[in-house]
Amino acid sequence: MAAPPGLWRLGLSRLAAALGLLLSAGAVPVMAQSPAPTLPPPDSVHLDRLGYMSTFPPEGAQRVDQSNAYKYPQLRWVVQHLRELQPTRNIRRGSAPASALPADPKPLGALQFEDAKGQKISLEAWAQSTYTDALLVLHRGRVVYERYDNQMQPSSPHLLFSVTKSFTGLMAAQLAHEGRLDPQALVTRYVPELAGSAWGDMKVREVMDMTGAVRFRENYTDPSSEIFGYAWASGLLPRPAGYQGAGNVYDFLKTLPKDGEHGQAFTYRTVHSEVLGWIVSRVTGQHWADLMSQQLWQKMGMEEDAYVMVDSVGTPLQGAGLNATARDLARVGEMLRLGGRFNGQKIFDAAVIEDTARGGDRERFKAGGLQAARPGYSYRNQWWVLHNADGAYEAAGVHGQFIHINPAAQMVVIKLSSHPVAGAAFTHATTLKAWAALAQALR
Amino acid sequence: MAAPPGLWRLGLSRLAAALGLLLSAGAVPVMAQSPAPTLPPPDSVHLDRLGYMSTFPPEGAQRVDQSNAYKYPQLRWVVQHLRELQPTRNIRRGSAPASALPADPKPLGALQFEDAKGQKISLEAWAQSTYTDALLVLHRGRVVYERYDNQMQPSSPHLLFSVTKSFTGLMAAQLAHEGRLDPQALVTRYVPELAGSAWGDMKVREVMDMTGAVRFRENYTDPSSEIFGYAWASGLLPRPAGYQGAGNVYDFLKTLPKDGEHGQAFTYRTVHSEVLGWIVSRVTGQHWADLMSQQLWQKMGMEEDAYVMVDSVGTPLQGAGLNATARDLARVGEMLRLGGRFNGQKIFDAAVIEDTARGGDRERFKAGGLQAARPGYSYRNQWWVLHNADGAYEAAGVHGQFIHINPAAQMVVIKLSSHPVAGAAFTHATTLKAWAALAQALR
Repeated sequence: MAAPPGLWRLGLSRLAAALGLLLSAGAVPVMAQSPAPTLPPPDSVHLDRLGYMSTFPPEGAQRVDQSNAYKYPQLRWVVQHLRELQPTRNIRRGSAPASALPADPKPLGALQFEDAKGQKISLEAWAQSTYTDALLVLHRGRVVYERYDNQMQPSSPHLLFSVTKSFTGLMAAQLAHEGRLDPQALVTRYVPELAGSAWGDMKVREVMDMTGAVRFRENYTDPSSEIFGYAWASGLLPRPAGYQGAGNVYDFLKTLPKDGEHGQAFTYRTVHSEVLGWIVSRVTGQHWADLMSQQLWQKMGMEEDAYVMVDSVGTPLQGAGLNATARDLARVGEMLRLGGRFNGQKIFDAAVIEDTARGGDRERFKAGGLQAARPGYSYRNQWWVLHNADGAYEAAGVHGQFIHINPAAQMVVIKLSSHPVAGAAFTHATTLKAWAALAQALR
Repeated sequence: MAAPPGLWRLGLSRLAAALGLLLSAGAVPVMAQSPAPTLPPPDSVHLDRLGYMSTFPPEGAQRVDQSNAYKYPQLRWVVQHLRELQPTRNIRRGSAPASALPADPKPLGALQFEDAKGQKISLEAWAQSTYTDALLVLHRGRVVYERYDNQMQPSSPHLLFSVTKSFTGLMAAQLAHEGRLDPQALVTRYVPELAGSAWGDMKVREVMDMTGAVRFRENYTDPSSEIFGYAWASGLLPRPAGYQGAGNVYDFLKTLPKDGEHGQAFTYRTVHSEVLGWIVSRVTGQHWADLMSQQLWQKMGMEEDAYVMVDSVGTPLQGAGLNATARDLARVGEMLRLGGRFNGQKIFDAAVIEDTARGGDRERFKAGGLQAARPGYSYRNQWWVLHNADGAYEAAGVHGQFIHINPAAQMVVIKLSSHPVAGAAFTHATTLKAWAALAQALR
């Protein structure tokens, strides 16, 4: 794929920064070997201090627009305001009252634990040092800790990046459970348009668990990397002058070739989630946002509407584009902990949650090279499974987004962040310590 | 203003169609002299039949995107889906229960009246023939008639075009009433950046009532017309290659020169509303969307969040970009009918509503040349005042958007439409007959 003329105008360093937002766990091994980056003091990049978009009009450095939206610290503003920069589709909560989310506050901010280097740190200091916008802990369905910072409000939708994938994965797993989608079928049974691509001889299960082999390079210094094509096709980045590439995400997916053998190794690729979402819409005949509204947001009594970024022809970014509040994500976590029921309704069948929490193939996960940041994990139905004694599993997105469920401790943790580093390599070892400390404190 | 290079690529006919959406009442006199256009049968342009954006992906003619969003009949889809094409900012309803909107249905669909040509027509047939998406009639605060069509739902926000202005006008009038904004002051007291423009020696009152003289041509066959600059600056139209013009609405406003003497004639110009909104944000220090949320949507117990389109630096389109549901607009109309109180709260002071409903200078209105479509009207605080025996006044937007308040008949009518013709010249005489028939039936 040749670089379109005009690419260089955009500047590769800017593109590299811009695409950091899409940085998947796939980039983690490289980063794990790099020295820890120098990070700005969190206070220095607080939105109160930065003053972005707070005057009429915002002037100079206070302006966040398409030219700098994915730079840092501008990204701190973007993750709470994506719809002000991009076309989006609503995920309506409906008109019913919000479901109960009872509070039983505990002084968990003072909870001490050892970080990955063995140094004592409080939960509050950890939240602060990892640029946390919202942190919410549920124990037995009660909110025992709820913390907002950086202008985030209980009503603010936050960009969830790859947490989005986990919703797409559950939808597909539910359809499989109902017999409406066959995981052993070829992708092309549902999306014949993909016949000439990597997905032409791939099974649906290999998409669900990301063991399909597709060429999708995320080399941010090489404009022929497929990640650039994704960003241009989806509208995440303005297209360079003279752009002749795919006009939308679906057309882009058709261009991606096979790269190796399917089913051998877990290889984390956002494009698998886009294909999975396409399959879900073909099977149901419904838009992803409408499924999210009908099957989750309306039934669960969410507090706020959510939304998803869409491309130029309305395709939702099913791998990275969901925005929702911490409190509504807490309801999602609790629904999963309860085996798929919430607010008096069945959201997913218990067997779907069990299949997800049981995890995927750990050997194939090892072969994917992500052991360093996520030791012992597997990936199933687009969820990260810890395979620890508590049976924990989680949805995760770059820059520090999490829905973490610990069945044994009857605990759900939501963490929404705007960390300067996209990948989890520098932070995840301590994240695991925080999960463990919380679980132990609540037992 | 020279046409930027590359303009011709876009094609003038497309631009002309595109900008029809912005067509203000200013174009009405010309149209009133034109023969009535040939209109497509409403059934032939029903969204169920057109099938826009209903498959994954939408193919060929079913696709609505930036290239055809303001063509017809694509516009029928756009007015219910603007946020899927443009950046927008939320107007949050808050977490309180929706306020009461009791129903007392009456068979008004069968109501017969004489149209402008003296032919008998039923309310239902009138709604159908004017491409009505939602029609809602309140009498003494009760919903006596509620009709949706063309895929519109009670929960669907609809693009309101220039109805938006009337919200901006009421905000400004309230600030004036509170002494926080001086209508006799120069605009530059609040927005010094406009010193070099038409607004440099204009008073705030002349902005509120649109009697300021600003050069803003809406000649759709002349790309040097200022309407093109507005569309490119705001993001309503994609910018031509090599575009060097204003990057946002505020920068565009600064470029508009004076054209005549202020205070002489009513001259309907969307850019006055953008300036008025700028003043409101300068006085309050708040974003228009946040004011709308805090002062109206949260206090009034609206059913759904509303939203407003924003430009590349977050500027709301304060003259044309609001989207809300028919039921929430009915609450607005009822609040005004009740003198500014609703849901147990003061929304506007009664004196503000009285000042608005009393109307503006009818001689200056006549001088503006809009008598043909709106005989006897005046314009005050960005509301159209009918000066009829019932004391009626209304907010109005192109393609058939209305909040109509008839105090004597204790009636509010909301009409949201996707009429092929932007201006009111062909339709307004019959619209007035419909208002009168409804008022008489309900008395």
